Amino acid sequence: MPSPLQFHFDFSSPYGYLASEKIEALAARYGRAVDWRPMLLGVAFKTTGAQPLTMIPLKGAYTKHDVPRSARFHGVPLRMPAKFPIATQAPARIVLWQRERDPGGCGTLVKALYRAYFVANRDISDPDIAADVAAEIGANREGARAAVDAAALKDALRKEVEAAIAKGVFGSPFVFVDDEPFWGIDRFAQIERWLAEGTF
Amino acid sequence: MPSPLQFHFDFSSPYGYLASEKIEALAARYGRAVDWRPMLLGVAFKTTGAQPLTMIPLKGAYTKHDVPRSARFHGVPLRMPAKFPIATQAPARIVLWQRERDPGGCGTLVKALYRAYFVANRDISDPDIAADVAAEIGANREGARAAVDAAALKDALRKEVEAAIAKGVFGSPFVFVDDEPFWGIDRFAQIERWLAEGTF
Repeated sequence: MPSPLQFHFDFSSPYGYLASEKIEALAARYGRAVDWRPMLLGVAFKTTGAQPLTMIPLKGAYTKHDVPRSARFHGVPLRMPAKFPIATQAPARIVLWQRERDPGGCGTLVKALYRAYFVANRDISDPDIAADVAAEIGANREGARAAVDAAALKDALRKEVEAAIAKGVFGSPFVFVDDEPFWGIDRFAQIERWLAEGTF
Repeated sequence: MPSPLQFHFDFSSPYGYLASEKIEALAARYGRAVDWRPMLLGVAFKTTGAQPLTMIPLKGAYTKHDVPRSARFHGVPLRMPAKFPIATQAPARIVLWQRERDPGGCGTLVKALYRAYFVANRDISDPDIAADVAAEIGANREGARAAVDAAALKDALRKEVEAAIAKGVFGSPFVFVDDEPFWGIDRFAQIERWLAEGTF
């Protein structure tokens, strides 16, 4: 079995959300699984000097127009949340907690959290709401809620983010096919060709 | 005849170069022409606070990898120039000069200048070299060379750049289909659907 696609994402990233709805089918067409890697983009932004897209003059206005248009283009439901952007430590830690218990169930949790935020307007930065979402897909609610404040999970997320930045991750979504990096849902066509041909 | 696609670009932008090799065929499939609009990205960067991509930590290294990979993906020849980035006032003014004389020939000149820089490693920031390229596609060499220093063309380029920024242009390539904005060669699939369906 070839190695899974490494899918790095931040829960506050709308393009990460759109990509989360597409990555599994893309991977499956080439016999690959998806390894879900939650990221804190704010930490990477300290390295690159970037700001959240929507806050940048000109680019911000364009992004607010491009995100819903891209959602329609990709056929993914989207309703921009009332609170945006958000801090994403809580859902990220719950994903890392879940990954220890059931790596195969990670995708279901990630997609449920993303949809809660980008479709149902639920503020998943709130640990209680993030734990509710985890419970709705069958996880233990108390365990998920406790994970948000657990020192071990805080440490695991810090290491996860540091490792991602060390690999060159600076945006969301950011996908590795073996060691080949692809930034953005815009690169899915290139990912597809890379998977099909090995290189190009 | 529907209105032409507005194609905004900077001669120092490798993604703008790749797009310049693709935009005419895309437009022609939907009975459209291309209106070539040279841009000075550095002026827009003052508004957005952006830097040249290759100079940004992490993103710079990725871009240096992504540009040649994207060229291969799109089947466009590319050899990164020894001097990069460059100031692009000289070729931009020659394009504006040419547009006054022969609007229909603009695409030939833009593509010749882009290829001179991104394939043949010729420094088109040098007014003499930019004028040489114009002469090679049949323009009057002395006229092209004089355009670089002409007050009227300096003024025309300043207005062109200001008008582009006022329309929201902050990157290269940047395409308008009627009034709909699309940033990047990554949006060509969306441009194609927009041209086919009128909206989506």
